[in-house]
Amino acid sequence: MVASSFQIKSNIIVLQLNKEPTFQDVKNSSNRIASFVHNTPVLASRSIDSKVNGEIYFKCENFQKTGSFKMRGASNAVLSLTEEEKKYGVVTVSSGNHGAALAHAATMNKIESYVVTPKSTNPVKIQAMKQYGAELIFCDSTIESRESTFQKIQKETGAAPIHPFNDYRVIAGAGTAALELLDKINELDIILVPVGGGGLVSGTGIVGSHLISKFKLIGVEADIADYGRQSLLNGKIIPSDYPDTLADGLRATVGKITFPIIRKHISEILTVSEDEIMQSMRFIWERVKIIVEPSSAVTLAAIFKYSEKFSGKKTGVILSGGNVDLSQIKW
Amino acid sequence: MVASSFQIKSNIIVLQLNKEPTFQDVKNSSNRIASFVHNTPVLASRSIDSKVNGEIYFKCENFQKTGSFKMRGASNAVLSLTEEEKKYGVVTVSSGNHGAALAHAATMNKIESYVVTPKSTNPVKIQAMKQYGAELIFCDSTIESRESTFQKIQKETGAAPIHPFNDYRVIAGAGTAALELLDKINELDIILVPVGGGGLVSGTGIVGSHLISKFKLIGVEADIADYGRQSLLNGKIIPSDYPDTLADGLRATVGKITFPIIRKHISEILTVSEDEIMQSMRFIWERVKIIVEPSSAVTLAAIFKYSEKFSGKKTGVILSGGNVDLSQIKW
Repeated sequence: MVASSFQIKSNIIVLQLNKEPTFQDVKNSSNRIASFVHNTPVLASRSIDSKVNGEIYFKCENFQKTGSFKMRGASNAVLSLTEEEKKYGVVTVSSGNHGAALAHAATMNKIESYVVTPKSTNPVKIQAMKQYGAELIFCDSTIESRESTFQKIQKETGAAPIHPFNDYRVIAGAGTAALELLDKINELDIILVPVGGGGLVSGTGIVGSHLISKFKLIGVEADIADYGRQSLLNGKIIPSDYPDTLADGLRATVGKITFPIIRKHISEILTVSEDEIMQSMRFIWERVKIIVEPSSAVTLAAIFKYSEKFSGKKTGVILSGGNVDLSQIKW
Repeated sequence: MVASSFQIKSNIIVLQLNKEPTFQDVKNSSNRIASFVHNTPVLASRSIDSKVNGEIYFKCENFQKTGSFKMRGASNAVLSLTEEEKKYGVVTVSSGNHGAALAHAATMNKIESYVVTPKSTNPVKIQAMKQYGAELIFCDSTIESRESTFQKIQKETGAAPIHPFNDYRVIAGAGTAALELLDKINELDIILVPVGGGGLVSGTGIVGSHLISKFKLIGVEADIADYGRQSLLNGKIIPSDYPDTLADGLRATVGKITFPIIRKHISEILTVSEDEIMQSMRFIWERVKIIVEPSSAVTLAAIFKYSEKFSGKKTGVILSGGNVDLSQIKW
């Protein structure tokens, strides 16, 4: 086993070093979290392949524990804590998948988790976070309220902050999905991932650029939440105003830590409409027979919309999660 | 390889022999259809296991080609045809999964398929059957109209009839799902399957009783379509009046060929209400993140309803299919 600063030092030191995770960090993360996450299956669909005239491989993180890839980064962060840090638990702000994943990772390691969440959060997701053991603290939906509530709770509890994406441990953990994908299907021409805060795309870029000699990392955003694309075009982070896209996992903009990594690895960011997201989500449910959430379905929407980019190519897609509120559906 | 009458003779001879398929027939069928079907994955869910306090393994035939286990029996029947029979194609009556499977199996083997289907058949299923290459012949919904239209088409075309379940080749093919399940998860205490015409439960019984020294084969039906249960209780086949259960794959009653096999192997048939079917279908979608149809969801409904039977046990469940008409859903 190769020693690395990431493996032998605590996360604090890594953060101080401000060091972009390396491929080896992702490998170490993969070993660290192995017994806490599923090595999820990779599925293919003939009907999609023939529609696109290419090969599409879906890495099914919707089958991941807590229903999304967030379990990878959350587990890696929790398992990287020092014994001293563990005493005070972990704290984050989340209205969804990261909160549930962090709570589950913390509970499995017998430490406390505090999740600051807007009052407006979907009741199903609130219930999930509670069920996984989170202590929930409600705030208003504004960025100011989230931030001040978070600061207050962090100060009161002394808990270690674990940001949903702007965190080296979380990025290294997120990269393990691509590691597993490339272990099963190698020599991909393209890896396609949804872009929210950029944790998944950063981790995927680190892994893909190390394992594949020539590949394109392509991101996808909702038309009405294209902060990553705008940020790339402007060379600086364009803030999000948290628009009401169906792809609720992609409402954030890229972070200070993820943005430089994304710029280094990504080829482009494609965008899709709300209607295209809904259509492609339904297509996956109907043809692949799996439940994915809108934030994952953006990828297939992009494949259909820009099919010329994927024709004749071998594309890996990370289906990031499957947490849909089915109570919203009328049968 | 062991020779058997099933393997070396044509289906006609098998039918004449009126011989119940043996375990070896299922094994031969498995080899015969290997390149025409998927070896589908087996999934487990911690949340379901802990709810039941037992181990539940789901054999995911919803991921099978054409979206249901019917592809197994249809492929085996088509591949068992003589060269002479192949010239005239195959014919069946179906309003759903068997029609699509037979059409696909026939098209892959470059032979014609005629599917007699009621005018009232779901448009999505009609489209699927067409897409797979079926020549559709519409009839009225009555049993008389189905039967007379079928006879007429069979006479006109000379096509070989392949019944959805009352056919030895179809039963042997259906049994291959249990063969794959037991190859992955052995020593099951219970195998749980939905009961419609009884093809799946017959094939499963033949395999289970051969491979497991002590096990219970349990069937599930909808309360309002419990013809299998009634037939077992009365010792004779109770006809179906094709009730409007959500579990549209389970509207038929057991057949002359399947009934004696079922009687030999089955422990009991449980029944569940329409509401329990819907609740458990939603539970699978939400927690296991896969799309199954109501006819498959009856199994989980039975596990929840009669949980004492499954507590502390290792149960294999065949999730028979995933063809749901999502256009019925309002988002």
